[in-house]
Amino acid sequence: MTSSHPTFAGVVPPVVTPLHPDGTVDHAGLEAVVEHLVGAGVHGLFALGSTGETAYLTNAERAAVARTVVSAAAGRVPVIAGAIELTAARVLDAARPLVDAGVDAVVVTPAIYAIQDRQETADHFRRIAAGLDVPLWAYDVPVRTHTKLPADLLVELALEGVLAGVKDSSGDDVGFRRLIAQNAAVGSPLRLLTGHEVVVDAMLLAGADGAVPGLANVDAAGYVRLWDAAQRGDWAAARAEQERLNALFEIVFAPVGRSGDAAGVGAFKAAMAAQGLLASTTMSAPIRALEGAVAQRVSDVVAAAGLGR
Amino acid sequence: MTSSHPTFAGVVPPVVTPLHPDGTVDHAGLEAVVEHLVGAGVHGLFALGSTGETAYLTNAERAAVARTVVSAAAGRVPVIAGAIELTAARVLDAARPLVDAGVDAVVVTPAIYAIQDRQETADHFRRIAAGLDVPLWAYDVPVRTHTKLPADLLVELALEGVLAGVKDSSGDDVGFRRLIAQNAAVGSPLRLLTGHEVVVDAMLLAGADGAVPGLANVDAAGYVRLWDAAQRGDWAAARAEQERLNALFEIVFAPVGRSGDAAGVGAFKAAMAAQGLLASTTMSAPIRALEGAVAQRVSDVVAAAGLGR
Amino acid sequence: MTSSHPTFAGVVPPVVTPLHPDGTVDHAGLEAVVEHLVGAGVHGLFALGSTGETAYLTNAERAAVARTVVSAAAGRVPVIAGAIELTAARVLDAARPLVDAGVDAVVVTPAIYAIQDRQETADHFRRIAAGLDVPLWAYDVPVRTHTKLPADLLVELALEGVLAGVKDSSGDDVGFRRLIAQNAAVGSPLRLLTGHEVVVDAMLLAGADGAVPGLANVDAAGYVRLWDAAQRGDWAAARAEQERLNALFEIVFAPVGRSGDAAGVGAFKAAMAAQGLLASTTMSAPIRALEGAVAQRVSDVVAAAGLGR
Amino acid sequence: MTSSHPTFAGVVPPVVTPLHPDGTVDHAGLEAVVEHLVGAGVHGLFALGSTGETAYLTNAERAAVARTVVSAAAGRVPVIAGAIELTAARVLDAARPLVDAGVDAVVVTPAIYAIQDRQETADHFRRIAAGLDVPLWAYDVPVRTHTKLPADLLVELALEGVLAGVKDSSGDDVGFRRLIAQNAAVGSPLRLLTGHEVVVDAMLLAGADGAVPGLANVDAAGYVRLWDAAQRGDWAAARAEQERLNALFEIVFAPVGRSGDAAGVGAFKAAMAAQGLLASTTMSAPIRALEGAVAQRVSDVVAAAGLGR
Repeated sequence: MTSSHPTFAGVVPPVVTPLHPDGTVDHAGLEAVVEHLVGAGVHGLFALGSTGETAYLTNAERAAVARTVVSAAAGRVPVIAGAIELTAARVLDAARPLVDAGVDAVVVTPAIYAIQDRQETADHFRRIAAGLDVPLWAYDVPVRTHTKLPADLLVELALEGVLAGVKDSSGDDVGFRRLIAQNAAVGSPLRLLTGHEVVVDAMLLAGADGAVPGLANVDAAGYVRLWDAAQRGDWAAARAEQERLNALFEIVFAPVGRSGDAAGVGAFKAAMAAQGLLASTTMSAPIRALEGAVAQRVSDVVAAAGLGR
Repeated sequence: MTSSHPTFAGVVPPVVTPLHPDGTVDHAGLEAVVEHLVGAGVHGLFALGSTGETAYLTNAERAAVARTVVSAAAGRVPVIAGAIELTAARVLDAARPLVDAGVDAVVVTPAIYAIQDRQETADHFRRIAAGLDVPLWAYDVPVRTHTKLPADLLVELALEGVLAGVKDSSGDDVGFRRLIAQNAAVGSPLRLLTGHEVVVDAMLLAGADGAVPGLANVDAAGYVRLWDAAQRGDWAAARAEQERLNALFEIVFAPVGRSGDAAGVGAFKAAMAAQGLLASTTMSAPIRALEGAVAQRVSDVVAAAGLGR
Repeated sequence: MTSSHPTFAGVVPPVVTPLHPDGTVDHAGLEAVVEHLVGAGVHGLFALGSTGETAYLTNAERAAVARTVVSAAAGRVPVIAGAIELTAARVLDAARPLVDAGVDAVVVTPAIYAIQDRQETADHFRRIAAGLDVPLWAYDVPVRTHTKLPADLLVELALEGVLAGVKDSSGDDVGFRRLIAQNAAVGSPLRLLTGHEVVVDAMLLAGADGAVPGLANVDAAGYVRLWDAAQRGDWAAARAEQERLNALFEIVFAPVGRSGDAAGVGAFKAAMAAQGLLASTTMSAPIRALEGAVAQRVSDVVAAAGLGR
Repeated sequence: MTSSHPTFAGVVPPVVTPLHPDGTVDHAGLEAVVEHLVGAGVHGLFALGSTGETAYLTNAERAAVARTVVSAAAGRVPVIAGAIELTAARVLDAARPLVDAGVDAVVVTPAIYAIQDRQETADHFRRIAAGLDVPLWAYDVPVRTHTKLPADLLVELALEGVLAGVKDSSGDDVGFRRLIAQNAAVGSPLRLLTGHEVVVDAMLLAGADGAVPGLANVDAAGYVRLWDAAQRGDWAAARAEQERLNALFEIVFAPVGRSGDAAGVGAFKAAMAAQGLLASTTMSAPIRALEGAVAQRVSDVVAAAGLGR
């Protein structure tokens, strides 16, 4: 990895992956989503994250998604892509096609299913970084990996040149604050993005370099305004924008009793469809799209936020 | 509970419980700690929290601690006290002596050891509130109770008049933000204090009514300055103060390999002793005080922060 | 503790605590339950366990229950009692009245709510043993304490004379098997009882000294027959008896959607009432007794097992 | 799936995957392991399980391992293979090459990393079964997947023809016993194998159809003797054999402080090397093989068991 690679900061939405009703990837729809996001002023794109249903896509589908996002972004903003797999060798098999597709960075989790200790986790990231030509980011998402990446390990790997950044979806604000401090203390080798869309104002105040807000698929312009307010130090405005966005985030609580994967991404897709940003709310099998009264309730919240079509 | 009860907001430190070397409570030392905190400008006192080693004190010791804190506070700031027990009937047995001692409010957790559902948890708080003459607060601390209190349940109990506030030590900033929003939407019946001392600036920005920072035992004046900056909307100053405090918080990471109870409260006691605020760093058996190199490292951090004696 | 204390082995039911409809302890009912169990041939009684709703009883109620069980047992079988509290000093406060009531042994968990390491857990048990005049047992129930007691620690404490036995409700058969082996390797200083009523045959084959089956409140004679079969090496008969009992155990799955505390003890109480062994199915507040269709379903299973009145 | 498929019962070892020192698969070594196991009388082979380091192998390596195991088994015993991947579509991509390699059945986990509910988990298995021409087994291993498969769901899917069997590595003997009973109640559509090598005697007594003991790589003959004893109802002999094997199992506790993946499979490989059954103890990167004093201790335990070369 070299310094010629673009860096990621600001609003970097995890791009949803539009699907046709038969479950195949809707590439034209994906291009439109990218165009909408870039047009709204976002600063980067995170393809193939959890919000992009990457866990459900085959390697062939993932590579195709990466190609579409990269070509649609057309160099206007950098693209980082998730290569989610069980262990290092499999991550590399999954990541190389993404690099071939032209993504600017790859983000990976610690080992999944495998049971590794700190030393092995460090070696996991080292092996992957050694096998890739683009910067490597760590994805800290214990709710899915059941492992929490320690702040000092992340900073140690940054100083080695292994890691370029962290997407923090740990839900552990105390740990994230400590990571920010430890990173700053050694010259900020890591870029630090929060994955929690409802506390972006607070995390920017705390020193985050940006956010990966799933809800930005629904209201990208709102997150850009929030970011701009924070950049100019207008924290009251940032907070007001955040609170407006948080009211909108209530869409993910509309699907009562549905699974985490169905409720979150399902609500984003339903809200995008309500705005005319998506042709179909289809989700990857076996996840069923939100329908009927639940989809209507999502649509109502969107309309109440002034975002309907 | 009536409106004549004082409310809690601002900086409300969880007061440490000084112990003599033989393990008995040092009441004179406790009076001195209270005097120091009130003198630094804190806005309330939280007696018998986890930081106060309440889990280790007998009911007789707890009542004595409550009496000392109340008499030392002398009405200058309100006092809230923890009544930590397994279930409702036992909580009431533990809480009544604290009310007799004159505390202004009582804070309790959901049931511990027992395995209850949402309905039973609601009834747990209802029974306790019905048996007490002072406002009841909920203490949300899943790392100890292994239960997360849902935001909508807390707000529902507030609207019923059962709960007056929440001390949130859940480490779940997303959930806390949602609680703030839901509470505000119904007229803010709950006072909401964060228990995480390293993100007070961010949580105040997010709308918290105050904080219960264990570290305020070590640097109460710093938290008061942070609060004042936030009150006047100077978030840059609040953040700078928070970052200074967070460097000080590194004392709790000095005791590598020690248990949670030993490392956290142990570091606070060692840091207070280094400042001359405590005569002994003794902790409740079977927890052993920090000693030797570890205590020295705590002392060094305190001195580096300009807080040594 | 001295060798004059009786040991515990065989079938040692955790005795339910009958309550009057107003929630107070029904001591006459408790005497009747004890009489029924002893008459069925059980080898010991475990008072004030989770099945005995000990988490919900005040210290005064606990002492009264211990007195009733001891006097009703009248020396025919030994009595062990649970002293469930947060930490060592509080455990001692809770345990001494039980010893005064005449119980033959006390069983305690590792610290609850407190966050202790291995050394502190060892000292927890050491302090409690030093403060009691009867043998101390460890209660390993991670589903409630969220701590798993390591086999080597238990054996170490046994060799020190701190622990006399273990009630294993860990649900970890691999760990229990290892505990059996490690205990046997040093001369079996510990008595080892399983708390899982549905695998008693298998655990006796594996080397357990007995069982603490909650379901024995419903069918004590069945467990005595199972024990007798195992003692004479008739494992086919033991298994057949176990399978019959397991069909009966389906009563705890009748209360779909109820909490752990409501479903388990609730089903035992409903099944006992269906047999005329209990006058009321009342449970400790805030737990509500099983009623209506659910209670009927429990009653049907009991009748199908030939245990109705 | 048709009735022409062989069924799995008895001793079905999860075959280790021998690696050359450079980390590539040692196919000649794998053939030798298979020959040794079949020669010892095992009743089936489980290729590409956790013990086979499947999480660390690429799809190409997995297919090659399946081909070697199938050809070495040469029809003498049936072969079942693990297809461990995140979600249904990816599982099918991973499983088809194994079926092409000639395995007799495929075993898969519930979704990993994804967050699915019961309905989605059922659909996950349904989609996979619909896409395969061989029987499908479920692998219940919550320590890795962080999901526990409910007994009634497994039986429901068996009655639909979706599942043919379950490998239970849940460590939940109570749940496994209930699964055995529910399966028996509907005509035993599922074959049920326990994955816990230290309680095989007890689980066979409880009604398991067999075991998948990782330790059988080290002492296959012992497990065959255990199985034979259980088959003839000689439970005392089964228990004695189990206890002998459990003493041997202490090898996995020799690597103190190592990760789960390093300690378990690492100890099996070291013990096989000590017997001359394996040329190299190399493990998949980033896991480092056991070495030095730890490997010697494993070797000593093996020798003490009379299994040295």
